[in-house]
Amino acid sequence: MSFNATILTLYPDMFPGPLGMSLSGDALARGVWTLTAKNIRDHGLGRHRTVDDTPAGGGPGMVLRCDVLASAIDANVPEGDPRPKLLMSPRGKPLRQDRVRELAAGPGVVIVCGRFEGVDERVIEGRGLEEVSIGDYVLSGGEMAAFVLLDACVRLLPGVMGKEASGTEESFETNRLEYPHYTRPREWEGRTIPEVLLNGNHAAIEKWRREQSEKITRERRPDLLR
Amino acid sequence: MSFNATILTLYPDMFPGPLGMSLSGDALARGVWTLTAKNIRDHGLGRHRTVDDTPAGGGPGMVLRCDVLASAIDANVPEGDPRPKLLMSPRGKPLRQDRVRELAAGPGVVIVCGRFEGVDERVIEGRGLEEVSIGDYVLSGGEMAAFVLLDACVRLLPGVMGKEASGTEESFETNRLEYPHYTRPREWEGRTIPEVLLNGNHAAIEKWRREQSEKITRERRPDLLR
Repeated sequence: MSFNATILTLYPDMFPGPLGMSLSGDALARGVWTLTAKNIRDHGLGRHRTVDDTPAGGGPGMVLRCDVLASAIDANVPEGDPRPKLLMSPRGKPLRQDRVRELAAGPGVVIVCGRFEGVDERVIEGRGLEEVSIGDYVLSGGEMAAFVLLDACVRLLPGVMGKEASGTEESFETNRLEYPHYTRPREWEGRTIPEVLLNGNHAAIEKWRREQSEKITRERRPDLLR
Repeated sequence: MSFNATILTLYPDMFPGPLGMSLSGDALARGVWTLTAKNIRDHGLGRHRTVDDTPAGGGPGMVLRCDVLASAIDANVPEGDPRPKLLMSPRGKPLRQDRVRELAAGPGVVIVCGRFEGVDERVIEGRGLEEVSIGDYVLSGGEMAAFVLLDACVRLLPGVMGKEASGTEESFETNRLEYPHYTRPREWEGRTIPEVLLNGNHAAIEKWRREQSEKITRERRPDLLR
């Protein structure tokens, strides 16, 4: 059973884009996951396929209409579809690795990519959209956020990564940033690899790495230690 | 003077990708910004153009070599280049809108996209790389993070967005999530637009929106209120 992603966007040609290459692209080609991108504008109104209108109460920008977006959702997501319907939005709950892991363990995702000033609140309520934020910055639309979410999920699907990334993984599970990495050459521009990593004492290496993780987390992200 | 982005990656074909479409694509075509993607592998070692090696001290995955990455940086970033050199990494400082704004006001960015378990710490120090994280999740590499950072910067460049996004912008500057948006139709599936937005009383609308922003922020992101 594969992980199925359906994207509702005004820029379906952006997909799969970078997700068609590298790890996620190989997995897509092997059928480990599927990706369907549908154009919201196919459900636009009138001769110009209008999808947006000015905000009630005034203000800058344009708002994606609830009727148009609902019709795009209804046409592409069958009733009873078990996949969560996500709306990429800076107002959403911040995405974290534990939610990525949950999503990757499920049947897939429906992702709505907003554009413009926002999306009419009523379709968020009426279609049960879960607002997800990838970070505290503003993007031109939800598409880049969808790439991020899918890349994060796909690398966790069975057979995609192997155990290659387990270090980074663990560091997120313990709320610690990763310790520093080193590899050959032993000396470079006068900079050496810390001795402890070269002497084969695994307990000492483990201890050094744990201490480094703690130290870096304390310095850079004290919020993770709370 | 345009905003110049140089990307060092193992997947140069991913670029411009989605950044070649929509707002950022138009701006790229008009020369508002430039994008150059260079392959780190061009600086790989030996017949196989090796770029990575096993971690000193053991552990999963592979580490990007400092000498290879330094040589890619040195070949593509002239001495005295004023652009910040960013390494997309979950260990980095979390990207926020104020940093995006600073970057967009500058000469551009050099972005190093890591892959594998990590990058040899010595090149981070030796070449003064600034580690930037777009969120607390693990990606297969820095490329998706580079898309996000560039999309966020480019929309702020002069002549790209106009004032369209000022609402979302302001909400980030005041550390508040945005109020709900509504547009036509007035009633949809029994759901109506809040009366206050329809009566043309601008002071009342302003007050309602401010209260909604406060309420949503308190419910969803109390961390922003600290």
